[in-house]
Amino acid sequence: MKIDLDRLMAERDIDAAVVMGSLAGNPTLYYMVNGAKISSGTVVKKRGEPAVLIHNTIERDEAAKSGLETIDINHYDFVGLLRAAEGNRLKATVGLFERVFQDRGISGRVAFYGTGGRGESYTLLRAIDANVPGVRVVGEYSGDIFAAARSTKAPTEVARIREVARKTVETVDATIDFVRSHAIRDEVLVKRDGDRLTVGDAKRFVRRALFERDLVEEVETIFAIGRDAGVPHSHGEDDDVIRLGRTIVFDVFPRERGGGYFFDMTRTFCLGYAPAEAEAMFEDVRACFDTVVSALEAGAPVRRYHEMACEFFESRGHPTLCTDPGTEAGFVHTLGHGIGLSIHEAPFVHNMSNDVLEAGAVFTVEPGLYYPEQGLGVRLEDVFYLDERGEFHNLTDYPQELVVKT
Amino acid sequence: MKIDLDRLMAERDIDAAVVMGSLAGNPTLYYMVNGAKISSGTVVKKRGEPAVLIHNTIERDEAAKSGLETIDINHYDFVGLLRAAEGNRLKATVGLFERVFQDRGISGRVAFYGTGGRGESYTLLRAIDANVPGVRVVGEYSGDIFAAARSTKAPTEVARIREVARKTVETVDATIDFVRSHAIRDEVLVKRDGDRLTVGDAKRFVRRALFERDLVEEVETIFAIGRDAGVPHSHGEDDDVIRLGRTIVFDVFPRERGGGYFFDMTRTFCLGYAPAEAEAMFEDVRACFDTVVSALEAGAPVRRYHEMACEFFESRGHPTLCTDPGTEAGFVHTLGHGIGLSIHEAPFVHNMSNDVLEAGAVFTVEPGLYYPEQGLGVRLEDVFYLDERGEFHNLTDYPQELVVKT
Repeated sequence: MKIDLDRLMAERDIDAAVVMGSLAGNPTLYYMVNGAKISSGTVVKKRGEPAVLIHNTIERDEAAKSGLETIDINHYDFVGLLRAAEGNRLKATVGLFERVFQDRGISGRVAFYGTGGRGESYTLLRAIDANVPGVRVVGEYSGDIFAAARSTKAPTEVARIREVARKTVETVDATIDFVRSHAIRDEVLVKRDGDRLTVGDAKRFVRRALFERDLVEEVETIFAIGRDAGVPHSHGEDDDVIRLGRTIVFDVFPRERGGGYFFDMTRTFCLGYAPAEAEAMFEDVRACFDTVVSALEAGAPVRRYHEMACEFFESRGHPTLCTDPGTEAGFVHTLGHGIGLSIHEAPFVHNMSNDVLEAGAVFTVEPGLYYPEQGLGVRLEDVFYLDERGEFHNLTDYPQELVVKT
Repeated sequence: MKIDLDRLMAERDIDAAVVMGSLAGNPTLYYMVNGAKISSGTVVKKRGEPAVLIHNTIERDEAAKSGLETIDINHYDFVGLLRAAEGNRLKATVGLFERVFQDRGISGRVAFYGTGGRGESYTLLRAIDANVPGVRVVGEYSGDIFAAARSTKAPTEVARIREVARKTVETVDATIDFVRSHAIRDEVLVKRDGDRLTVGDAKRFVRRALFERDLVEEVETIFAIGRDAGVPHSHGEDDDVIRLGRTIVFDVFPRERGGGYFFDMTRTFCLGYAPAEAEAMFEDVRACFDTVVSALEAGAPVRRYHEMACEFFESRGHPTLCTDPGTEAGFVHTLGHGIGLSIHEAPFVHNMSNDVLEAGAVFTVEPGLYYPEQGLGVRLEDVFYLDERGEFHNLTDYPQELVVKT
């Protein structure tokens, strides 16, 4: 949570944190400016002090909505710095940070966050490190202070995720209803005009259902049937028809409009009937899911659950990444991930993870089995929230059933 | 254009380019993978050779749609590297790049692109520079080879932008029709149910019109009235009513669904009638626009046009950024910017820019005048394309008129 930042900075000996860049694709900047609709900005947080936002003049109204103390970039005369540097933006930007740090009384170990160009960041931070007196640049690699803070959610964040959850469940339900409402001809769904219903039609329905609920499909929904269902991140082909008795992996992960919180859920279903192999796989995945969920424990290292899933699947004869990192059949992805302002964030639930289940964690549990050569795939994904009292709440209020009657 | 990359690499003595990261918010990665729906990946381009895409196993189908040669990350045994590094991701990732570079015969000056965490990029690139034998990391700062390549569009890109333009113009037209169709009570627009029409209602209409055309409003549309119109990046308040005779700045900048190309256009209008001050400002902005557009010339430095706009406005008595970098009244932003896979990209049309108008450039011309204390703002924005024969094409087929009859 945001209130953990000072503690995290102290633990890691960070004197100040700078979060910068464009807002689009920059969840940590969104987090720090509380979703204010600036196009870009720089947040500076000295340890033990509230964060301040440096913004462009023409964005002063939107910047003010961050609730942070705001500073117009003109205060530091960036244009004058650019002129003095004869248009050399790197030199001018280093000069800008020198003025900012001086103005805010910042020295020592200063760490940089937010997204930006890789080469650009490398060059800028090296230049700051080399040229700003009294400042030593820190570049945390993975699991940085913001990843840590964002990995546990405050109640206001959980409330927002719950609302996205509710709308996502409604969308999944409406989509399955839409699909099953079609007539059948030769084992294939057909529309009123006699044309065959396609994966593209189903996806359009999903997009519209999300739109009507003020959610955004930032990355295309997965609605994958047959062989595509057997490859976890295949999105499904728009022209594919929808045939009875095939596993359909339906993975929806919408976001609040304006770059906010995500939800993420997956159901797998067969229309009309399910072949015996699909039934067996589904039962294995559901049993794995139940095994993991009933073992969830506050404070536990998450890798335990990925390993538990691997052991469970192996006991039922399926290959897994734990014993064969190159396998394309069986359990071929990690068990889960945190969700929030990024679709994938800490805690990362896999066997190389050092994350533990802390109060405020919001994370997926999503075991799956994939046999692309057999045209089969099954994944079930719910989101869990661990509250302050150590209780887990399933935020995904929707049944797990394989066969959908037509 | 993409075909310029080898030349740009040669000019800058870059032996290989690496573009990496998540796809979301990463236009250069989208550019290199041709919009393939991977969630993340690493593109490696050795100078003089086609680019290759290193991808996660579970994304192999989507990766194949990039049209690039693809390499499963398992080929380099990243999991083995992670194990050998006892879970140290930095060390494992450096090891991964060492294997990639060896495998692809890459040494010398290797530059990194794409978006990622700032501190993370700094630390990773320093570690690669220090630890991979024969490789020297290059971090271009601004105007990097991809900014340069992307600043001129190939015909296929222009065709996509034209299509977004067509839909954007339709949306603007439909929205103005929607707004003007309302009844008037006490100089304010009212809905059939007697409630007053709000800025929020207008924005909802815009969002839906874009959605119906398969476009996405990634950042909220600007529909700013009165004082908000006087602050260029104020988005407008949802609860504001829509009053006759006030300047409304309507700036729409949608994008192709799935992270593709943007368009960007602005009209300013007054409903019913326009006060004399608004009329005068509008005429000044339109005359400035015409002055700039009639002077556009292939090969010209873009700063010329920003300076021309400043001179024009000053000759009419308006303050500008050219003479007063801190002004909040008058012409307070830059004249324009390129558009493409980013809403703002090269060429950047301002007085500190070194960009020139090259064949393939697609850029905005958007003079504006702002007087927030008087509750007035006017901006007009069209997009121009400079073709291979040196001709400029206005891609914004919509009139510039201040008064909209009710």
